[in-house]
Amino acid sequence: MLRVSEPSFACLGGGHGLFQTLRAVRQLPHTSIDAIVTVADDGGSSGRIRKELRQVPPGDLRMALAALAPFDDEGLIWEQTLQHRFGGHGALAGHAVGNLLLAGLVDVLGDEIQALDMLRKTIRAEGRVLPVCDRPLDIAAEVSGLDDDPRIMREVRGQVAVASTPGTVRRVRLIPERPRAAQEAVDAINGADIVTLGPGSWFSSVIPHLLVDGITEAIAGTDAMRVVVLNLSAEPGETAGFSAERHLHILAQHDQRLRADVVIVDARMIPNQSDRLHLERAAKSLGARLAFYDLREEDEDGLLLERHDAEKLAQALQSEYR
Amino acid sequence: MLRVSEPSFACLGGGHGLFQTLRAVRQLPHTSIDAIVTVADDGGSSGRIRKELRQVPPGDLRMALAALAPFDDEGLIWEQTLQHRFGGHGALAGHAVGNLLLAGLVDVLGDEIQALDMLRKTIRAEGRVLPVCDRPLDIAAEVSGLDDDPRIMREVRGQVAVASTPGTVRRVRLIPERPRAAQEAVDAINGADIVTLGPGSWFSSVIPHLLVDGITEAIAGTDAMRVVVLNLSAEPGETAGFSAERHLHILAQHDQRLRADVVIVDARMIPNQSDRLHLERAAKSLGARLAFYDLREEDEDGLLLERHDAEKLAQALQSEYR
Repeated sequence: MLRVSEPSFACLGGGHGLFQTLRAVRQLPHTSIDAIVTVADDGGSSGRIRKELRQVPPGDLRMALAALAPFDDEGLIWEQTLQHRFGGHGALAGHAVGNLLLAGLVDVLGDEIQALDMLRKTIRAEGRVLPVCDRPLDIAAEVSGLDDDPRIMREVRGQVAVASTPGTVRRVRLIPERPRAAQEAVDAINGADIVTLGPGSWFSSVIPHLLVDGITEAIAGTDAMRVVVLNLSAEPGETAGFSAERHLHILAQHDQRLRADVVIVDARMIPNQSDRLHLERAAKSLGARLAFYDLREEDEDGLLLERHDAEKLAQALQSEYR
Repeated sequence: MLRVSEPSFACLGGGHGLFQTLRAVRQLPHTSIDAIVTVADDGGSSGRIRKELRQVPPGDLRMALAALAPFDDEGLIWEQTLQHRFGGHGALAGHAVGNLLLAGLVDVLGDEIQALDMLRKTIRAEGRVLPVCDRPLDIAAEVSGLDDDPRIMREVRGQVAVASTPGTVRRVRLIPERPRAAQEAVDAINGADIVTLGPGSWFSSVIPHLLVDGITEAIAGTDAMRVVVLNLSAEPGETAGFSAERHLHILAQHDQRLRADVVIVDARMIPNQSDRLHLERAAKSLGARLAFYDLREEDEDGLLLERHDAEKLAQALQSEYR
């Protein structure tokens, strides 16, 4: 791996996890940032637009763009406006303005990537946002624990349903199966110096990337430093009760060709040395080593939040890349 | 009146009439263009946003901005996107993307004029768009001919209802009565070299300006050349059967302090010399003279359309100002 002083980043994920990752990498010296975003959302404003206009759900794309808005007056207004949700109790209530604008640009330009590039230019975003695939996807999960007999597996469909199932998710698949990755997303991974995967909702924002045809192959084949950023804790719903180790096993289980170089873990999450050894073994199965950092955001009173601190994550990435 | 080589324009109106006027004046050498726009719409996408979000109806403002988008690739995409209406049969169907974006900016910035200036900058519009008043207005009309007895007057409320009444509109008023004009609109009229009023739906896009406190006074007091642009014909609904002369009388009747310098008329509309004399007298009551031009847009086959040709209107304004 050649260490360049201003690396290019490709960041895979979706939702709030990707938002924080982008907030982190934009602080580092960089040549370019490409956000590669899941398109399987079926809830809220995104889900309504997806159904009504038959488009790729815009929400995760819009959030990634907002994360990349410049930190000046105009950039902050754009960030707020893209993220702003209409209030009230009418037909518009809950719709994010950025979702509607993106949907309008897609209607006019007939192409998600052109629409995103136009919006990127408009808000002067510090990076490019790409859908992992140019068509809307659905997630279907094999879930146990929904019946009295824990051996019975049921299929749960849709991102919202998967994210909130009271059962235990065993495996997810995409509908349609193995959709083709957007060439721009594959190119971004191939051309990057640093590729990040996660943090984020494991089954609905992280693993779907591995199920898109071309993505795991690109991650396995790129010369970039490949970083898996683990979540700070198991998530209620999707990964309730899952250990850190299990998070890594799930990645390998969904595509055993996946390769990584380093797994960045919040040190507080695994204080126990024997747990760290187990986790190390799981990382090794991906070809990766572990790196522990203090990563949690603190509020004003020093209380730890359930969110990666962008600055701490930036420092961790910087240290690993040096 | 001092003739400057690059005059500043203040154009009052709304809807398609104002759109064509702005298309005209942007072709002329100019220092600045200010569009001053009615805010009494209660139908369609605008009406829904007005009711749902309790905002000034955005449609006429959005259309004026679209008229001022640059004629380059990006400007054309913005024009199309602002004007684009969502299709389908869902909650978004019929909403113009620009209306939603403007509504979002107003929510975030808390101010229509700031939101419009932000959007102007975004699309690099060739002029500023100002609401005539910072609150939504309602139109109420005295209408005759709705009963068997033609002397009975009924009040019809709302722009859509007024524009489509089968009766004869006698007079309109605003609710609330005499709202205060936006200071920026008054300043634009005071500072302009050329002020235009019309064309447009007479009772719902033109006359409402005269009923906003401060506008007629500013038009009467400005050093600008004041131009009334008459419609090409009476409109079904609002002004069915009204002569050109009556259009001018209605202006004076709504505010007798109104003053103008020239009334621009499509020559084909009044071919008859005696009708022209009547119209001249009506213009004189405003202090204005008449100027006849060929103003109608033609389609590819040379058929005359019900729309001012932007280039012809520009030439007429240019000739009058020389």
